[in-house]
Amino acid sequence: MDDFLSVILRRRSIRKFTEAPVPEEVLIDLLKAGMAGPSAMNAQPWEFVVITDPELLQKFRSALMYAKMNYTAMICVCGSPRVQRNKAGDRFWVQDCSAAIENILLAATASGLGSVWIGVHPIALFVRQVRNILNIPEDVTPLGLIGLGYPAETKEPRTQYDEKFVHWQMYAPKPEKRLHLFKHRKNEEVLEDTKEE
Amino acid sequence: MDDFLSVILRRRSIRKFTEAPVPEEVLIDLLKAGMAGPSAMNAQPWEFVVITDPELLQKFRSALMYAKMNYTAMICVCGSPRVQRNKAGDRFWVQDCSAAIENILLAATASGLGSVWIGVHPIALFVRQVRNILNIPEDVTPLGLIGLGYPAETKEPRTQYDEKFVHWQMYAPKPEKRLHLFKHRKNEEVLEDTKEE
Repeated sequence: MDDFLSVILRRRSIRKFTEAPVPEEVLIDLLKAGMAGPSAMNAQPWEFVVITDPELLQKFRSALMYAKMNYTAMICVCGSPRVQRNKAGDRFWVQDCSAAIENILLAATASGLGSVWIGVHPIALFVRQVRNILNIPEDVTPLGLIGLGYPAETKEPRTQYDEKFVHWQMYAPKPEKRLHLFKHRKNEEVLEDTKEE
Repeated sequence: MDDFLSVILRRRSIRKFTEAPVPEEVLIDLLKAGMAGPSAMNAQPWEFVVITDPELLQKFRSALMYAKMNYTAMICVCGSPRVQRNKAGDRFWVQDCSAAIENILLAATASGLGSVWIGVHPIALFVRQVRNILNIPEDVTPLGLIGLGYPAETKEPRTQYDEKFVHWQMYAPKPEKRLHLFKHRKNEEVLEDTKEE
């Protein structure tokens, strides 16, 4: 566990890379890590685009505001109803693909690579930019980009663990009465009633 | 890398557990792993509820259709605008919290625990059930539950890697012209135009 936890703590966002290319066999190991991730009802609602072509990588740097780093490889993780094995992917593809991305970031760290997660969905501008560069069809959604390369900067391991984020047994003492329910976040359905169990 | 990848491959959904409790110090290690995860702009838009009380765990088994397993501990990972450090959490909390969940699942595997990810958000019924059991306020959203315990079943390591999910350099050959754009998934904003870059 200690060795394993140390990889989790050593995974930091690396934004400066050497010019050394990432070998294809290493990239395939990262994909194996990604596809070992869990997905709701094992729908596997994902497709991966691996980019090592310098001209294509330059297009990302030119087009995307948050993708200016000098990575030498990139993996674009997409939610894809084309390949998903069942409808669970319709509701859970963001979570499934995020777990795949985290697996890839950790496997990269364990391989001595640096990595940075560049968010794409749900920012419509970024989604369109990535679709245009990679020729991704309209029913497939790029969730995020992973910039990869051998690190030219070091960062300290860290957890950011803080007790203030942790509750034991219950979230909080029961209030005397619930306030009205309201629509939370734009992604969530409206709750229908205010009944307690 | 081999040892690390083996943990990723050994992480399987475990649904049968022994009666042995999960020690508090192990649960805290899992939280450290979760909070070491990346978040967009380091917003850390998460709160964690750790449940070991047998009566509370029984409430989950009674209420939630997909939470019937005999786990001895549970971590509920919530998206929380209350604690997030900046507005990036508004758009990226699902991705951030999913990465934290995956870290916890992997750390559990490395600790000899079994684990199962039970999806909650965006299913309104499940969100309401979890809110009611844990007294989670309306502005905090339970994304998922992690059932934990010492495993009473074994599963083979696996990747599910398949070349059919992988594209190199570009998603596909450029079509002669784009079809009309349409609104993809309920979560995504409508794209504004059909211009190529």
